[in-house]
Amino acid sequence: MLTAVAAAAAASAGTINVFVRSDTVLTSARNRKRLFHLKPPGRCLEDRTSGSCVPSSIVRSLALPPDVALLEALNEVLPQGGLGARMNSASKEGGFHPSTTNSSLTQEVEVQKQAPRAPFKLGPKIHNWDQQRAAWLAKYPHKRLTPQGRPNMILVTSSPPEPCPAATGDHFLLKSIKNKMDYCRLHMIEIYYNMAIMEMDDFWIKLPIIRKLMVSHPEAEWIWWMDSDAIFTDMTFDFPVEKYEGRNLVVHGWDKAVYEDKAWVGLNAGIFLLRNCQWSLDLLDMWAPLGEKYGNHKNEVGDFLSKELLGRPNFEVDDQAALVWVLYSKPELRPHVFLENSYHLHGWWVDLTAHFDEMITKYHPGDGGSKWPFITHFVGCKFCAGKYNSSSLERCYYEVERAFNLADNQVLKPYGYQHESLSSVDVKKVSDEVTHPLERLGIRLTD
Amino acid sequence: MLTAVAAAAAASAGTINVFVRSDTVLTSARNRKRLFHLKPPGRCLEDRTSGSCVPSSIVRSLALPPDVALLEALNEVLPQGGLGARMNSASKEGGFHPSTTNSSLTQEVEVQKQAPRAPFKLGPKIHNWDQQRAAWLAKYPHKRLTPQGRPNMILVTSSPPEPCPAATGDHFLLKSIKNKMDYCRLHMIEIYYNMAIMEMDDFWIKLPIIRKLMVSHPEAEWIWWMDSDAIFTDMTFDFPVEKYEGRNLVVHGWDKAVYEDKAWVGLNAGIFLLRNCQWSLDLLDMWAPLGEKYGNHKNEVGDFLSKELLGRPNFEVDDQAALVWVLYSKPELRPHVFLENSYHLHGWWVDLTAHFDEMITKYHPGDGGSKWPFITHFVGCKFCAGKYNSSSLERCYYEVERAFNLADNQVLKPYGYQHESLSSVDVKKVSDEVTHPLERLGIRLTD
Repeated sequence: MLTAVAAAAAASAGTINVFVRSDTVLTSARNRKRLFHLKPPGRCLEDRTSGSCVPSSIVRSLALPPDVALLEALNEVLPQGGLGARMNSASKEGGFHPSTTNSSLTQEVEVQKQAPRAPFKLGPKIHNWDQQRAAWLAKYPHKRLTPQGRPNMILVTSSPPEPCPAATGDHFLLKSIKNKMDYCRLHMIEIYYNMAIMEMDDFWIKLPIIRKLMVSHPEAEWIWWMDSDAIFTDMTFDFPVEKYEGRNLVVHGWDKAVYEDKAWVGLNAGIFLLRNCQWSLDLLDMWAPLGEKYGNHKNEVGDFLSKELLGRPNFEVDDQAALVWVLYSKPELRPHVFLENSYHLHGWWVDLTAHFDEMITKYHPGDGGSKWPFITHFVGCKFCAGKYNSSSLERCYYEVERAFNLADNQVLKPYGYQHESLSSVDVKKVSDEVTHPLERLGIRLTD
Repeated sequence: MLTAVAAAAAASAGTINVFVRSDTVLTSARNRKRLFHLKPPGRCLEDRTSGSCVPSSIVRSLALPPDVALLEALNEVLPQGGLGARMNSASKEGGFHPSTTNSSLTQEVEVQKQAPRAPFKLGPKIHNWDQQRAAWLAKYPHKRLTPQGRPNMILVTSSPPEPCPAATGDHFLLKSIKNKMDYCRLHMIEIYYNMAIMEMDDFWIKLPIIRKLMVSHPEAEWIWWMDSDAIFTDMTFDFPVEKYEGRNLVVHGWDKAVYEDKAWVGLNAGIFLLRNCQWSLDLLDMWAPLGEKYGNHKNEVGDFLSKELLGRPNFEVDDQAALVWVLYSKPELRPHVFLENSYHLHGWWVDLTAHFDEMITKYHPGDGGSKWPFITHFVGCKFCAGKYNSSSLERCYYEVERAFNLADNQVLKPYGYQHESLSSVDVKKVSDEVTHPLERLGIRLTD
């Protein structure tokens, strides 16, 4: 759901020019502070926040030193540490160039600090988290499991702290969070709704909050990330946590697609679960630096990953491409990763919503897979920003309402109500109340 | 938050004409189905749903029989059963008349069934709920209390199933539900977010869902209703449940104002707690019929209560006026009611928000009262409908954002963040992460 700054980059001889699409939605304070709008030639640079003016000649002359932090971040996850050489080579050849320029783009420049800097980190390196957490659990053993005897989980989702640009974007977000609240209540899962933009933003907003939840909630065995455009459609399906003994990352995907094909869509990073352990903190430490918002870093990494990964269009680095790359580059991680495809931990809406009506007549919730998808993910529907990549936003809204109502019918059933149709917000009574409501729960009394 | 159909009524000689304001927001399927729009004189009545046409002469000639159900509902809660006589007397005198007519009103007519009907009920009469629930708890004794040893509670709130008419109404609702999710997570309270319009709507939507939650959740000792325009501002304050032993209804109010003065604002029905017991089901059975949506019932009861209660403007019956009337009329209920005013279970925003900045410098959360209000209630701010009774909606939005951020700062503090100011959506880091995050929880290890 979070809108990325879709950018094309031109870098030459250490001087950086960043082109940002004029329809970009900037969601973070950091964006607003660090981007300067370049007025027409001969004019000054306008600081969007203060409205003050900086002569463009000064900004253009800011030379970018070799980005040591970027090299370190990429080398960390390169099999043969190859990018440093590639970048040096590219620099000698005159730098990276965007394949096309777009006249509709607004020219933007980011001000760079000149000194080499430390690698980006989400926080100080934690070395013995497993021991720390074990000591805490030994002190509070009753907090290890839920009253139902299952591992504690926190589901976390996020949306921007400001109103959506799209007219009904916030109403969609409201239904999205209700859907998650319902699932979490029914399955005894804690839920954390984030609206704060911390160390990272856009696609990457999830990483800092996941780390913070891990280290602040030692009682939680799993942190479950879920994008706002993902809807639980099977409210009965229980996440099969026992299946993942020894695994620390569970994400929808396919081994061959990630480990052999290096496919950008070999997994879907919109929904995943991370075990609260040292391994996961280490994974975040490898993953996060690839998405650092600094200078032209995100465009350079995006450019690199578009060349390396199968089927990735060229835009700034996204968390999913970076995760595919980390898992591909670090084979030692794989034994602790479960790429799940036996049910729809992520199901692409385009494949699923047309079958909802047929599904209702033939099957029932609890399957989680092709007969009744666990999670229907509206990838590509920019409900909040108001854009859609390849289809109409109206279709997105129509289908997401049906997905929400499909789930809501399961929530309302015990209260005797159902939606009048899958596309209707109105509900109708389908069963009358009784004078002995607990009889269905095995309590039989006479008046 | 829910928008009422603000109506003035004219009834004479058994023929009913209902005037509905043209800016009315109809939130329910029932509204849409049962209201007919009267076109200019000589034209037909248009059924808004089907677009079909009914000659207005036919609708106008529908005679309303004496409303037995209304008489029974009011007589049930009248000290001397006086309204029947008053209504008969009014009928002989030529019926009720609105004190003014408004040329901006759109004329509406509701079609009435002619046969006398049964009194309105939320559901079948349940007689032995305490025994049924006790039997269930005996069977599942571990479900009586939370793992923390406190009575189980379900907080329930609601908002319309369709987008708000006001541009940023849904964004406000999003922050409102996040605020409630945060409080409930921190205090181990279940939360149910209702978007279904069941047997009653507008002000009254709360009653059916409260009853359904009671009879479907025998594990819950309390059902806590909270309007969407009420914001938790003290996230530390714990609802003092032990204080209410023997009480079944807890609501902000004053004994004298309700039991002596019959004041409309003697209590605030936007936030209250009902114990899950027979007494509460009986209270709902007395309360709900006063708000039945049938014919001119709501206007007639509203007219009656405006005459009986202190300080109530004349509009259709609201749940608060009806509750004041029930508690006034039935002294036998009072021993089980706690009208709370020792802290802000409901605090009127106009009295509170101007003191937020001073409060932060002088006091700290946990007080719940004048030093740090537990709940700040934006009574009168129609965030979703986009109207405000006596001040500007802009001020409402400005102050509710500050209230939300005041609470959010308490949520973010353990993660090291705070809002840049009370009126800013942006957050800033205020404390660095550490390598041993659990030391503050008493876990000390060396690397």
